[in-house]
Parts: sequence; C-alpha cells; structure tokens
Amino acid sequence: MVKVVDGKVIAGEIKQRVKENISELMKKGYEEPCVATVKVGENKESNLFLNLKDKACVEVGVKPLRVEFPLDSSVDEIVGEINKLNSDEGVHGVVVQFPLPKHVSMHRVISSINQAKDVEGLTPYNLGNLVMGEERTIPCTPLAVLKILEHENVKLEGANVVIVNHSPVVGKPLDVLLLNRDATVTVCHVYTKDLKRHTKNADVLVVAAGVPGLITSEHVKEGATVIDVGITKTSNGVKGDVVFDEVKKVAGIITPVPGGVGPVTVACFLENMLKIYRNCVEEK
Amino acid sequence: MVKVVDGKVIAGEIKQRVKENISELMKKGYEEPCVATVKVGENKESNLFLNLKDKACVEVGVKPLRVEFPLDSSVDEIVGEINKLNSDEGVHGVVVQFPLPKHVSMHRVISSINQAKDVEGLTPYNLGNLVMGEERTIPCTPLAVLKILEHENVKLEGANVVIVNHSPVVGKPLDVLLLNRDATVTVCHVYTKDLKRHTKNADVLVVAAGVPGLITSEHVKEGATVIDVGITKTSNGVKGDVVFDEVKKVAGIITPVPGGVGPVTVACFLENMLKIYRNCVEEK
Repeated sequence: MVKVVDGKVIAGEIKQRVKENISELMKKGYEEPCVATVKVGENKESNLFLNLKDKACVEVGVKPLRVEFPLDSSVDEIVGEINKLNSDEGVHGVVVQFPLPKHVSMHRVISSINQAKDVEGLTPYNLGNLVMGEERTIPCTPLAVLKILEHENVKLEGANVVIVNHSPVVGKPLDVLLLNRDATVTVCHVYTKDLKRHTKNADVLVVAAGVPGLITSEHVKEGATVIDVGITKTSNGVKGDVVFDEVKKVAGIITPVPGGVGPVTVACFLENMLKIYRNCVEEK
Repeated sequence: MVKVVDGKVIAGEIKQRVKENISELMKKGYEEPCVATVKVGENKESNLFLNLKDKACVEVGVKPLRVEFPLDSSVDEIVGEINKLNSDEGVHGVVVQFPLPKHVSMHRVISSINQAKDVEGLTPYNLGNLVMGEERTIPCTPLAVLKILEHENVKLEGANVVIVNHSPVVGKPLDVLLLNRDATVTVCHVYTKDLKRHTKNADVLVVAAGVPGLITSEHVKEGATVIDVGITKTSNGVKGDVVFDEVKKVAGIITPVPGGVGPVTVACFLENMLKIYRNCVEEK
C-alpha cells in the first residue's frame, strides 16, 4: 500500500513548535519577531503564496511587514532599502519575493541581505556553508523535502536520489543537502537526455520542474519515494509534476499537490524565522 | 584511438599566460604579488605538493610566503594569524594547507580568510556564489577538471557526468560547476551502492577517491572521457584511482597520473592568484 504524505500534518507539528517557542521567548520580554518581505512589481501567483506566508506568520506570532516597489525600480533603490532593513533592530528577518523583474540582478539583491537576517538561506554565505557541510540556515524548499523524508523515515545514506531541477533555490541546495547525508545524488533538468533512465533507478525522486504530467508511472521504480515540488496553476486547479493517480500505484511513498511539499515549505520558513529571531534576541 | 591528455602542456599554456600578465602588471609599477600559505604541523605528502606550488609561484613571478604553526597550535592562534594576513597590504592571497590537525576546525579556519584573498575559492562566500551560478574564485581542483574538459572540447550540456567524491574541496564544488554548464551530474562516494552501474553510463567520469585500482575497464563506457584526480603514493610510485593500461583501451579521452590533473591544478592555483592580485592592485 502506498503511503500518501499529509503535508498539512507535518507542517502543523512544525508550526505548533515554532509558536510555542516564540511565545516562550516573548514571555522573557523580548520584542515581537518581525519579517520584512521585499516585493518588486505584481505577480498573481507570488501574491497568493505571499498571502499564505503572511497568514502563517501571524498564526505563530511573527509580524509580517511588506516593502513594495514598483516594477521599474532600480537595483540600487532595492538594495538601499534592504540595507535599511539590515540595520533596523525591529526587523529580524529579510526576504525577497521571487520572481524579480529581468533588469534586477537576483544575485546583487540576495547578496545584500545580512546573512544573520537571511530567513530563506539563499545568501552566498549560507549556501557556501551548506557546501562545506556546516548547515546554518537551509533554503526553505530543500529543507521541506528533507523534513518530509525524515518524517517518513526514508533512509538517505547510500540511497539513489534523483532531483529534477538545477536552480540555485531548489535543485542545487537540495543536491548538496542530500550529499551531506551520504545519498548518491543525480541532478537532472531540461538538458538531461533520457530522463526516464535516471528516474527509473531512483529510490527517492524529487521533481520540481513545473511541468504538469512530466512524471508518469513509467518513470518510477516500484516502491520509490516520490516528492512532488511542482506547482502549476491550470484550468483544472493547481497541479504538480507527477501524474498522481497513476504514480501512486507504483510508489511506496508519495506527496500530493496541493497539500504536500507546499505547506511544509511555509512551515520551514517559520522554523528558519524562529532560529534567526532566537539568535538575534539572545545575542543582544 | 584514445587521447591521453598531457596535463603538463595545458598547465604550461596557463602558466605562460599568468606569467605574462603578472609581468605586465608589474611594469605598471604595482608591487610584487605575494601568496601566504598557512601550514599546521608536518605532513610529507602535503610538503611535497607545497614545494611544487611554491616552485611554480616563483616561475611566474609570485612570491610564496610560508607561515608555519606547530601541530598543537590552537584555532585562535591560527585564525589570529590569518586575520593579520588579511589586513597585510603586501599579501594578496591567503591559503591554508590541508590536512589540518583534528582539533582544528577546517570551517572556522577557512571562513576566517578574507574572500578577496581566497586563492583557493573555498570560503563560504565563494562556494555560495558558485551555487548561485555567479562564479568568482573557483576551487583549484574542480577548475582544473573543467579546464581539461574545455581543452579537449568535451561537450558538457546534456552530458552524463559521474563524479566519485563528495568532499567540499573537490566533489561538491565540481558538481555545482558542471550543473552550471547544464550537465546531468551524479555524485558517488564510499556509501554508493553498485558504483559500476553509475560509472558505466557516464559520458564523463571524474574519479577522486584516493583508492588505486578502483576504476577498471568494466566501470567505463566505450569512448567515455575519464579524468583521474586520485593521487596515492605506493611502493610502485604515485598512482591514480584508474587502472590506466586497462581503461585506456575503452576510454575516448583519459588523463594519466602523474602528469594529468596534478599540474593543471597547480596552474589553476596560479591563475586564481593572478585574478586576485589584479583585483587587488587595480582597485587601489
């Protein structure tokens, strides 16, 4: 029998723990934790996700702050504002909402975040520590995938893991995170020839291609763990990359979309926020 | 016919270019480039390599400086010295010689190097930029592997690459470097089950296990490119990880040991040094 992972349950456990910890810290007299999200221009899908994140923040006692820029803002204006947030003692975490407009260098914007306030673990400092095996703040989506694998007791040491995504936000940090746990990791992407040959041998398959229907039962080994990070809005609702009804007959463990990786990613964001907030107030 | 890569030729070309560039910069009146190597305790093999590096430095016009600590030195003493080198205007590059004694945190020592003087590209900042696809100073061994692949016109986009090593100095940064070039990359190591199944499908196989004789002709696909990073001193001389005489009958391109990756790694060290020196003097 296939096990369908309930992301909401895992997220609920994480959020409950975060909420209790924040409540305890505030009882000690520390100020309210606050996370600022820098957003440039408008994007329906990212607005939806941002609203979910803000709601989750309020639930656990984190104050969400939005700093919005018009689409034609310059990199200097955005970096200038991030520098202000970096030195604002009332702000504990700084996040940049993707996508950024094309004329804005993601690297320059992300690099300008003070690593101590880097809730999403995407600054060069935090990513580099990950490569060194010194895990500080881990990017939220890779962390969510790891939390799910740990929750389901999936053995990583020596496991054949295939990741379909090689972005700096998901695929590459997840690759490193799982290598740090001694998995054998293959990273595939749009340039990969014969994707099936790779995925078919995976004990753990993580897909984040954003291509609904990409992964069918033919791609999956009997009993494999299949983690679907894809989220695409279609006329039939939100879809993952995996043909769920078909693949669940082959897989041993599978995450649904929606209700799988998504809610755990939001919970991991809150967990990162707690960690950063704790470091900040306890250092003062 | 197999092509046996001559690492000395590739290294010679790089060194010649570095030498000419340094000579031009010095003609402009800039000070002599200087690299300081911090060494803790004695280790025969690392001494040998260090002597080679120092000799190569002198050849291209870089002044090598050694800062030696006894084996029982504390992390604080070592980091204190690195901080002095970081602010010494006569020193352009700072390198830490491996291995470090067990009581010394590699992460703390490496992290203390000013990223602008990080010749080996191993600070969190430089490794993190690599993950972001913003390549600044690239670690020398991964860079040497890339230079060889480029020199031999090996296509990386869409190629199946297998790396046998998952250390933060070789395997993980090489993994990221080749993902940045859209290869499909699998990282194997001592926990990998059925290594042969992975290596047998590789268009490009990079081995850095330090286990002489690990890779036989049975591990290699007909026509594959085989890069041997292994260096082990045996009673029969220095040996790589690949059974050369056997694998060269199967491979399309192969690097020997010695005379393959080794000299190119030293040349890449000098190239990194030139880059850092140029940034330093031209910024003043």
